Amino acid sequence: MGGDDAPLIVVEGIEKVLDRHGNVDFLLFGDESQISLLLDRYPRAKAVSRICHTPDMVTNDEKPAKALRNGRNSSMRLAINAVGDGEAAGVVSAGNTGALMAMAKFVLKTLPGVDRPAIATSFPTQRGQTVILDLGANIECDADNLVQFAVMGEVFARQVLGIVKPSIGILNVGVEGLKGNEAVKKAALILQETHLPIKFHGFVEGDDIGAGTVDVIVTDGFTGNIALKTAEGTAKLFGAVLKDALGRTIRAKLGALLALPALNAVKNRLDPRRYNGAMFLGLNGICVKSHGGTDALGFSNAIHVAVELVADKLNEGIKEDFERFGSELSSSGVAQPDEG
Amino acid sequence: MGGDDAPLIVVEGIEKVLDRHGNVDFLLFGDESQISLLLDRYPRAKAVSRICHTPDMVTNDEKPAKALRNGRNSSMRLAINAVGDGEAAGVVSAGNTGALMAMAKFVLKTLPGVDRPAIATSFPTQRGQTVILDLGANIECDADNLVQFAVMGEVFARQVLGIVKPSIGILNVGVEGLKGNEAVKKAALILQETHLPIKFHGFVEGDDIGAGTVDVIVTDGFTGNIALKTAEGTAKLFGAVLKDALGRTIRAKLGALLALPALNAVKNRLDPRRYNGAMFLGLNGICVKSHGGTDALGFSNAIHVAVELVADKLNEGIKEDFERFGSELSSSGVAQPDEG
Repeated sequence: MGGDDAPLIVVEGIEKVLDRHGNVDFLLFGDESQISLLLDRYPRAKAVSRICHTPDMVTNDEKPAKALRNGRNSSMRLAINAVGDGEAAGVVSAGNTGALMAMAKFVLKTLPGVDRPAIATSFPTQRGQTVILDLGANIECDADNLVQFAVMGEVFARQVLGIVKPSIGILNVGVEGLKGNEAVKKAALILQETHLPIKFHGFVEGDDIGAGTVDVIVTDGFTGNIALKTAEGTAKLFGAVLKDALGRTIRAKLGALLALPALNAVKNRLDPRRYNGAMFLGLNGICVKSHGGTDALGFSNAIHVAVELVADKLNEGIKEDFERFGSELSSSGVAQPDEG
Repeated sequence: MGGDDAPLIVVEGIEKVLDRHGNVDFLLFGDESQISLLLDRYPRAKAVSRICHTPDMVTNDEKPAKALRNGRNSSMRLAINAVGDGEAAGVVSAGNTGALMAMAKFVLKTLPGVDRPAIATSFPTQRGQTVILDLGANIECDADNLVQFAVMGEVFARQVLGIVKPSIGILNVGVEGLKGNEAVKKAALILQETHLPIKFHGFVEGDDIGAGTVDVIVTDGFTGNIALKTAEGTAKLFGAVLKDALGRTIRAKLGALLALPALNAVKNRLDPRRYNGAMFLGLNGICVKSHGGTDALGFSNAIHVAVELVADKLNEGIKEDFERFGSELSSSGVAQPDEG
């Protein structure tokens, strides 16, 4: 029921995702009358869906703590419960991010050894794509949190993206070792000094996101959220300036018409819907958050992300790595960064 | 002497800036033989320049503290001294940012009431331009620092950009009052509750930078630096993807040729050289940092920024506001943000 155009985008999103994945079926939590009317229009989606009726839902402006207390019968909570009960392999929602994280943490708990879950998503880059975490689950992070994000991001890049030896960078205001706050300096030291089998690149800067310098970028949720939205805003600005310029003269319009397939290819390559589906990494269950303002194509991509995380056994991989390297994943025993 | 192509870009930059400002002359600190050879090729620049020879210079990888100790005769230090001595109205450098800030703070000191200087620059937006500070001078900032940045940014927007009543936003991970870290929440409370004659918009998010939602955006130096570079990297990514797509087919190439004036207008509108020149606000003297990798056009813009800050009496305005509102510019007496 979450998202600006729900439940329509959910049903249409299912219809679309069936072109990519044949072997998935769905439990749809929400208002039965609305959903069944929609399913009647989409027979392929209907064939793989079962409605679990509930009249309750979490609104977009509800505080996470309140949603957790009062939303025990909400569509969001029941969908998460289905994952906790093993009835569903994963949950996808376009609803209230904070409530989804709070409920998912409460119901699913974190994986053994993971102190805090993180929100991760893929960004388009000049080299392909880069996964960034955390994007807003943790406003303040210490070095141990960042190191754990690095391990989870590495497992994702290896196991889901299929990169044999993914490179990891920590987002900072410079690449030299003495730059940045205590958390990033200490996290870098841990990743350098311990024996984790991780290809640690070192620090990266904001422009390394678009450049695609590394496969995984680790940051705290405050900085990550602002970097993500700054990138989105800059892409929108560029698009708006381009559109405006191409509409100003007859000559420009004619040029744009000729170049239309190329311009559409650009739009498609950077289309935020193609990158829709933020993963909550570190939970004992797959949970993916779709952008609330997305459409059916975007929502289908969020479902696709969840399907991949399940199929590629992301959580089994994270669990294994945290078992193997548990003692390395904390700062105990590692020297403090040298300020000199 | 600072910057990848110095001192050439400096001399050519002077030549270019004379088209915009007739009434400026220059003291050039650095290697006399190199500079005078260049000035012979640029007679207009030569006519308004005087060389102050020094063989010493600060290198790009020198630590600020070391530059401060050992660089007493460097071109950077002597240029700053000239401002401190009243010989020059402002200093422009394309050299080591950290060293420039350390030396400028040491020589010029901060303006009365300003705890910490901030680095500020203008960003292109869908509505025109937005000034953002801090961009990296202060890795960690408390609420009082952010409030002082807001006052300085407001004076800049009003006095230099000519905006009658500039709007101010604080960069955060959401627009609701309870989002974010303690510093941004407390700074917002101070700006709301005190009687500063500032048009405080509230919190803004990363995508509000490109949208141009407010005239001034306040943030800590860690987040600001990463937002600035993320925006630069995203613009580069967009440009690269566009260029690639427009070169792939004959039809696209033809379209691009027709649309060339429009494409050039886009490039020009978002050209980082047009926004080159980061201001060190809060110092008792004008100091502008040019990007090290810029060219003559970019450097001329950094000079232009310095000329404007002097001509529009920025520091007089900041001094006045800090005198008038001194007691409002700190958190003493303001209640703590309510966590409920």
